[in-house]
Amino acid sequence: MTYCVGMKLDKGLVFMSDTRTNAGVDNISSSRKMFNWTVPGERSITIMTAGNLATTQAMISLLQERSEAVENRAPGILQQPTMFQIARLVGSTLKEVILGSAAEGPESADTFAASVIVGGQIRGGQPTIFLVYPEGNFIEVTADAPFFQIGETKYGKPILVRAYEPTLDFPEALKLLLVSFDSTVKANISVAPPFDVTIYKSDSFEAGQEMRINYEDPIYQSISQGWGDALRSALDQLPNYPVEE
Amino acid sequence: MTYCVGMKLDKGLVFMSDTRTNAGVDNISSSRKMFNWTVPGERSITIMTAGNLATTQAMISLLQERSEAVENRAPGILQQPTMFQIARLVGSTLKEVILGSAAEGPESADTFAASVIVGGQIRGGQPTIFLVYPEGNFIEVTADAPFFQIGETKYGKPILVRAYEPTLDFPEALKLLLVSFDSTVKANISVAPPFDVTIYKSDSFEAGQEMRINYEDPIYQSISQGWGDALRSALDQLPNYPVEE
Repeated sequence: MTYCVGMKLDKGLVFMSDTRTNAGVDNISSSRKMFNWTVPGERSITIMTAGNLATTQAMISLLQERSEAVENRAPGILQQPTMFQIARLVGSTLKEVILGSAAEGPESADTFAASVIVGGQIRGGQPTIFLVYPEGNFIEVTADAPFFQIGETKYGKPILVRAYEPTLDFPEALKLLLVSFDSTVKANISVAPPFDVTIYKSDSFEAGQEMRINYEDPIYQSISQGWGDALRSALDQLPNYPVEE
Repeated sequence: MTYCVGMKLDKGLVFMSDTRTNAGVDNISSSRKMFNWTVPGERSITIMTAGNLATTQAMISLLQERSEAVENRAPGILQQPTMFQIARLVGSTLKEVILGSAAEGPESADTFAASVIVGGQIRGGQPTIFLVYPEGNFIEVTADAPFFQIGETKYGKPILVRAYEPTLDFPEALKLLLVSFDSTVKANISVAPPFDVTIYKSDSFEAGQEMRINYEDPIYQSISQGWGDALRSALDQLPNYPVEE
């Protein structure tokens, strides 16, 4: 599996993805699932992928190729005029790869399914994030649904639901995401560090801050270890349910 | 879906189950998923079910019938000499119902699948809990895996992983379970109160304390509301990840 979150804040966009890929528990590897495209002063785009690795790699390669050979191909990520058009391009490319794989062999399309989070900002538009489904259609973040998760989403959702605020600054948002990712890592071996991060500041139209947070990172370690203690002391603050001991 | 947890503590066993059943989001109802059998001074058994409601109701009815008409039927829950034999009986009954449903119609056995947690104590043995699979086989709690979850298990797992201790007393365990259930309820509409609880004290060989915790329960409400605040203050205690604001 995989775990990726794209989050919209008042200050901008934050993206985090893990790097574990597996084809069964006896075949585990690392693969980057976050991809960035920037035209300084004009646009900054981030894509994260979850699902069949052959599908997502082929999709990224097609998007990459299309963004480099403009004259010969359909317009790529660097040529689309709006984020909405980029989401459409990603959706149609994703669907094309999935259906192409399914058509070539005996497996159904489900085998090759993948989901994508694509976000960023293009001059003239607001920063935004889309969640693209394997069928090629997509939804956009709103004030009511200000973040998207793909992959192994359930373990890390409760803390996001409780603690997300649009007013979070980037260091706070990163801490919240690390807790959400760490809760997932502790419960499911199909998600693992290092984690890739991109932080895009609204209206900067520059490449976001990119970093990779390793398992050994001292801040991640202190968040991971501190969170267990903090949870236990948070539990202590709550009233016990009054039953016989 | 459903959410049930069976937990082994030094002091005894705690069982909690939700009551929501659904056949699609437009067909939601309540159904008890916890069933108790007691022979005072001799045994106390609790069963919780998740999965296809027709399957689990048929299984409980068969177990019930078998426990009442001893002379004519295979020995029931009240006649099995050990918890292991009870787990075998539950497994074979569950498998029989699932395969029977699948054999009668066009659907595969997966459609009728269900899982069961069965725990308790019989004089001469230790208190213990089994997780029974749709295939009829089962696993038992150990010191390394001291609790079982069935149904919608992922949202509520991180807090159990972090805060479970075998030394918890019953009021503390109930609080921990309510937080785990509340995290699930907040994230997934297929799980909902009221919650059924059975608390069995080791070597009591009596019916456990049974209760039903409603949504309006003031202690549950204060745990549910307090947990959001406690989580946020727990987050505040952790170091921010140092990036540009």
